[in-house]
Amino acid sequence: MADTDMKDLVVLAYSGGLDTSCILVWLKEQGYEVVAYLANVGQDEDFEAIRAKALKFGATKMIIPDLKKEFVEEFIWPAVQANAVYEDRYLLGTALARPLIAREMIKVAKEVGASYVAHGATGKGNDQIRFELGAYALHPTIKVLSPWRLPEFYNRFQGRDDLFEYARMNGIPLPVTKSKPWSMDANMMHVSYESGVLEDPNHQAPDDICQMTVNPEKAPDVPEVLVIEFEKGVPVKVINKTDSTEVTDPLELFLYLNQIGGRNGVGRIDIVENRFIGMKSRGIYETPGATILLTAHTDIEVFTMDREVRKVKRSLDSQFSEQVYRGFWFSPECEFTRFCIKKSQESVEGKVTVKVYKGGVYILARESPSSLYNDELVSMNVQGEYNPTDAGGFIKINALRLREYCRLRENSV
Amino acid sequence: MADTDMKDLVVLAYSGGLDTSCILVWLKEQGYEVVAYLANVGQDEDFEAIRAKALKFGATKMIIPDLKKEFVEEFIWPAVQANAVYEDRYLLGTALARPLIAREMIKVAKEVGASYVAHGATGKGNDQIRFELGAYALHPTIKVLSPWRLPEFYNRFQGRDDLFEYARMNGIPLPVTKSKPWSMDANMMHVSYESGVLEDPNHQAPDDICQMTVNPEKAPDVPEVLVIEFEKGVPVKVINKTDSTEVTDPLELFLYLNQIGGRNGVGRIDIVENRFIGMKSRGIYETPGATILLTAHTDIEVFTMDREVRKVKRSLDSQFSEQVYRGFWFSPECEFTRFCIKKSQESVEGKVTVKVYKGGVYILARESPSSLYNDELVSMNVQGEYNPTDAGGFIKINALRLREYCRLRENSV
Amino acid sequence: MADTDMKDLVVLAYSGGLDTSCILVWLKEQGYEVVAYLANVGQDEDFEAIRAKALKFGATKMIIPDLKKEFVEEFIWPAVQANAVYEDRYLLGTALARPLIAREMIKVAKEVGASYVAHGATGKGNDQIRFELGAYALHPTIKVLSPWRLPEFYNRFQGRDDLFEYARMNGIPLPVTKSKPWSMDANMMHVSYESGVLEDPNHQAPDDICQMTVNPEKAPDVPEVLVIEFEKGVPVKVINKTDSTEVTDPLELFLYLNQIGGRNGVGRIDIVENRFIGMKSRGIYETPGATILLTAHTDIEVFTMDREVRKVKRSLDSQFSEQVYRGFWFSPECEFTRFCIKKSQESVEGKVTVKVYKGGVYILARESPSSLYNDELVSMNVQGEYNPTDAGGFIKINALRLREYCRLRENSV
Amino acid sequence: MADTDMKDLVVLAYSGGLDTSCILVWLKEQGYEVVAYLANVGQDEDFEAIRAKALKFGATKMIIPDLKKEFVEEFIWPAVQANAVYEDRYLLGTALARPLIAREMIKVAKEVGASYVAHGATGKGNDQIRFELGAYALHPTIKVLSPWRLPEFYNRFQGRDDLFEYARMNGIPLPVTKSKPWSMDANMMHVSYESGVLEDPNHQAPDDICQMTVNPEKAPDVPEVLVIEFEKGVPVKVINKTDSTEVTDPLELFLYLNQIGGRNGVGRIDIVENRFIGMKSRGIYETPGATILLTAHTDIEVFTMDREVRKVKRSLDSQFSEQVYRGFWFSPECEFTRFCIKKSQESVEGKVTVKVYKGGVYILARESPSSLYNDELVSMNVQGEYNPTDAGGFIKINALRLREYCRLRENSV
Repeated sequence: MADTDMKDLVVLAYSGGLDTSCILVWLKEQGYEVVAYLANVGQDEDFEAIRAKALKFGATKMIIPDLKKEFVEEFIWPAVQANAVYEDRYLLGTALARPLIAREMIKVAKEVGASYVAHGATGKGNDQIRFELGAYALHPTIKVLSPWRLPEFYNRFQGRDDLFEYARMNGIPLPVTKSKPWSMDANMMHVSYESGVLEDPNHQAPDDICQMTVNPEKAPDVPEVLVIEFEKGVPVKVINKTDSTEVTDPLELFLYLNQIGGRNGVGRIDIVENRFIGMKSRGIYETPGATILLTAHTDIEVFTMDREVRKVKRSLDSQFSEQVYRGFWFSPECEFTRFCIKKSQESVEGKVTVKVYKGGVYILARESPSSLYNDELVSMNVQGEYNPTDAGGFIKINALRLREYCRLRENSV
Repeated sequence: MADTDMKDLVVLAYSGGLDTSCILVWLKEQGYEVVAYLANVGQDEDFEAIRAKALKFGATKMIIPDLKKEFVEEFIWPAVQANAVYEDRYLLGTALARPLIAREMIKVAKEVGASYVAHGATGKGNDQIRFELGAYALHPTIKVLSPWRLPEFYNRFQGRDDLFEYARMNGIPLPVTKSKPWSMDANMMHVSYESGVLEDPNHQAPDDICQMTVNPEKAPDVPEVLVIEFEKGVPVKVINKTDSTEVTDPLELFLYLNQIGGRNGVGRIDIVENRFIGMKSRGIYETPGATILLTAHTDIEVFTMDREVRKVKRSLDSQFSEQVYRGFWFSPECEFTRFCIKKSQESVEGKVTVKVYKGGVYILARESPSSLYNDELVSMNVQGEYNPTDAGGFIKINALRLREYCRLRENSV
Repeated sequence: MADTDMKDLVVLAYSGGLDTSCILVWLKEQGYEVVAYLANVGQDEDFEAIRAKALKFGATKMIIPDLKKEFVEEFIWPAVQANAVYEDRYLLGTALARPLIAREMIKVAKEVGASYVAHGATGKGNDQIRFELGAYALHPTIKVLSPWRLPEFYNRFQGRDDLFEYARMNGIPLPVTKSKPWSMDANMMHVSYESGVLEDPNHQAPDDICQMTVNPEKAPDVPEVLVIEFEKGVPVKVINKTDSTEVTDPLELFLYLNQIGGRNGVGRIDIVENRFIGMKSRGIYETPGATILLTAHTDIEVFTMDREVRKVKRSLDSQFSEQVYRGFWFSPECEFTRFCIKKSQESVEGKVTVKVYKGGVYILARESPSSLYNDELVSMNVQGEYNPTDAGGFIKINALRLREYCRLRENSV
Repeated sequence: MADTDMKDLVVLAYSGGLDTSCILVWLKEQGYEVVAYLANVGQDEDFEAIRAKALKFGATKMIIPDLKKEFVEEFIWPAVQANAVYEDRYLLGTALARPLIAREMIKVAKEVGASYVAHGATGKGNDQIRFELGAYALHPTIKVLSPWRLPEFYNRFQGRDDLFEYARMNGIPLPVTKSKPWSMDANMMHVSYESGVLEDPNHQAPDDICQMTVNPEKAPDVPEVLVIEFEKGVPVKVINKTDSTEVTDPLELFLYLNQIGGRNGVGRIDIVENRFIGMKSRGIYETPGATILLTAHTDIEVFTMDREVRKVKRSLDSQFSEQVYRGFWFSPECEFTRFCIKKSQESVEGKVTVKVYKGGVYILARESPSSLYNDELVSMNVQGEYNPTDAGGFIKINALRLREYCRLRENSV
């Protein structure tokens, strides 16, 4: 870039780790002025130590907004309403945080007058996409620097050793040990682990890899029973029947479910998934609280929602999940699916009783002021207004097509 | 019916229980000749005692075909290939057996020259539909007697007491105790419990209700590790790494997984579901072996199948599951979805390592000769042929639509 | 029914034709008091003559509400927004009127205190279902009399001759001639013809069958050009460029398009369709105005709506169309799909220029204040902000999956 | 590229037009040896004149394979089976030819030992994607040169004038006149027109733009009537009832339908569509023969296929259409959808009578040896085995859900 008096300003998503520290120094070398930015989305970090690091390595300032409340209310709650799961298993813990982080990064960029944002995501992953689609959607003229996709960067740092060498030269501390040969991403909702020894999908993950959850085998021998209350498809109260704990604030409630799930070993998965970029990748994820919520929400939703509405809605759910996974949170289609899904949740209310035990979440009971469940109607002992002969007509009419088809084929057994 | 010399012949699906015993006697009273029929689909029964009962209460003969092998190979295996689940939770254990039972019942009817078949299913449930759609599809001119939908029957037996009285008069033994105030359906794949005390969806199911599985809390403290090998989407070998047990025969393999799942408390659910008839109903289901297979098959499928093929296939899976739930196994649409799903499974092969522990099934590792997983491609340390700058173009093009949308709305943050 | 002083009151959907006249007389014979009801949904009828007939044959009174405006605004407009078509061809002209007719019939029933409603639809068609699902949904305890499904009625009137004889005995005028050996249903949106000579799907429909449209071969030799303006997905103005006619009132606008379409032979189809009841049936339909609107709305919708939003929306459209066809307008799922579709239309605005000529509707041009069309972006002569090298990356990343698949199969040409 | 003795060999898709002629010369300048290649997919061209041009401008040789038969049988027929339409209107005429052209180009590249292929498609369109995805899928290590995406090319030729100047310098003839200010793509199935004056979506296309079809207003005043016979979803015979012409050979049959459609003005559309790249673009398309086939195939398909099978199949059709539009013909998912769709066509057989008149295609009648249409069943005069009281039960059971919903809402009118 041009060597002018006025340096180009870049907001760098800075984690405090080796990669983004090297990127910070490198950006400075390239002549940029760097504002470091780290979103607090509930990950377990020493934020002030990171701030000190950023400033030490040359950032003009370090901005660390607390986004936890927004994360729960604007991102996790819609995912709960959508029973959001990608490829049948992944609860989208990382994917849901990215648009929030991008939104705030753009806000910061506008505030500080930066025309660039930068991040340290690799060139093979989903996160680069999620960050950048969010950034472009919210600020179409923003320029993105993704060093791991810039030849001048990745050709210079072709292996980890090059990066270590650069770090050493610039006083950037190296990771203390090689005891954790994998990479991870953490937020309030989940921690994910991938790469390194995990790249071989037939290599079992180390027992001690997880941070948010205990191994189910080490969980307590006594189950905990919770009553989770929903309104409009989101949890509004949790009561622990074992010790009468009661929480209602959204952020506290979610953290409490994490705690319950965590100590009972809930929400660990080992999966291979299909990245947007087209490759398969293997990851270990732990998502304790959201796993409890997915189970409970599914139960209260089926209980209170009309069958056919739910079929339409579940199709929207699938689309929502894929949109989120692929980084399209701030797209017109994701706005639309969120809007429709939210509408479907108006009567999703009631209480679900769940047992949490050694990795499992078991539904025990449910009640609702607006269930379509009618115990008199379903009862085998009560006829009520239901006329069983109607069922005969129903079956005959449903069979009409099948009988015609059979006749055409002369295909009786 | 007319009092002719030649009695009308009916094949009655006879379970040996109170209801079908009363129906047997009642059909005789109405002037029918009754051939009793009971499909052995792996339920835990004293079949000879039932045979004796049937003959005692007036059946001309009792036919008890062993359908276990067909059940596994022709019905459970396609469900495994389809990851078949209804409304996110129910593995279709009853629904899958019904078409098989109906097919054999029609075969028996043709062999004995019966123009009627009869069953004791209630007029509010799914099973009447599944039986009868199967029957009509395979034998369009068959006549079905469903006493619980015939006014002359249900008006006579308006409560359980009427039935008890009738049983007493006809020497039909009453259920010994009232200790199990619910109804159940059992086969090799699952046992379901509903009605009675379970009708209140907020009333917790009794602890001792289940037959195939122990309560997870009473399961062993040590996990079992299995390697399940798949070919064309169905399991062909299970090796228990704990004790080196190895099974390959389909029927044995499935029973073995039931045993593993059962002793480890796998596959219990408490759900409210939407019947085809339109009402919501609450059931407790246990499906140990199939739950293990669903988990393992999902894993090997994602591992070996192209992402986009799987999206198409999963949509077919949903349709298949609903077809099965609603009794349309022998429909042209279900033939079509089965055919397509089967095609998708040609390369679904490999070994999945699973841990089974106190109700949970955990994937540990997987390998396959035909996976699309490419560890070199995904590696963060190897560039290989992958050019990271391509990802930048990919993102920019994907962002094009979003930027236009944003511009139109002048909607930057 | 019981012979009490207080007669049961029934609201009969009365068309003035042979069938419902006989039903009126027959209901009186059965002891009912009958209020006749005929919805004016724009069909071409002598309503006062029908009123006189109803009273003559014993109706206590005859109620003829004018529902034309509601039909256009509450039923046709949502169908336009949904591009509603059943099985690729049928624009749902009859299906859309039925719920409106049912809603008003229930309103009348409540006003006059009737606990019964009756209609003359056959027992094999869709309309019985549409009427009755509407009625039950809006008034769960209403009782429906459908004489063509009552054995006491259909056994008495086994052929048309029995009905003719009964009509003669009761002074009901017979259809003057047999020149139109088919049945028809008419409203403002369309006329349908079926049965009789049309039952043979290989028998060509008579040339003179249609009422709303001329045969394209007899249409004017000079096209008419219209500019149709949309707001929120519904037409708000039509200007005929040929003669400068301009209409804006919804009802007038729709009638005007019918006139244009009608004189130019637009909207005639000959199809076989699948009834909800499961059988295939052949019909001739003419739907002039709505066919023009479908063409124009599709054009402005694609022009103004984001591609991916439209994919989600089109899936909802399909579901909406099937819901309407099957009579589920007043269902929770149809409320939900209508709500979502309506949301999608917020920016569907602009003007479409169409040419109407001898059966064809041709789009000539379109403009919109909120199109996502960007002529600079798409131009082959302007580079603009678009960087063509991005497309290379986009393609490479999209190819990644395909190349892996090919490698796995070693499947080069 | 390196200046070695052994020049790199490139196969260039060469149309004979200005752009690819300049590209040919430019590639030579860059040091490549060029083999020119032009697929004969039925476009109206003087192939020998193009061959002469290619050799004159420096191609080592010119290969012009005749792919017409393959185009019809392997690409158009599957599209007919799939009723393939993109965004409700575009019959995919260009999109279907691209994978065939790419497949043959790769075959040529392998035969001549080229490690490069090149094409002249723009960097903003779909065709670059279709060519290259096809190429990479079939030959993962092929290298693609797309000059309009290479900075060294597009920076040199920034406007048409630069290209004209280069052409003049190199003896490349300029387009004779500017009378056709748009670009076009032509093959046997369709001709498309876009860019230039067409870029303004509100500017009406010139009357004389089309090549395959007459303006409907200039079409004959007398309709032509055809009987089109299908087997397994593809046409096997066409009889023109007007003049008794009969064709059965696939290629001849398709060309004959083009001729009929062409002279009657069938298959012209003016649309805005969404490119894969994300932008909206406006095009004029004419697709005479395939439009007739789409109409006729839809009719015979609904006539012969079970309703529910067709619902599943239509969903696959949509996916197929998008796959083709986006260039994924040689993808695992498109192989899968084609396979499933083909299966669905096994009984799609029979004869459809269509009238073709001034732009319109009208179905008159149809017959089939394997229709599920049962005129006795549907007849209003014949009861047959159908019991109308069954419909009452069918309706009541379908209403159950609606009545419960209404009760919950206490929402009667």
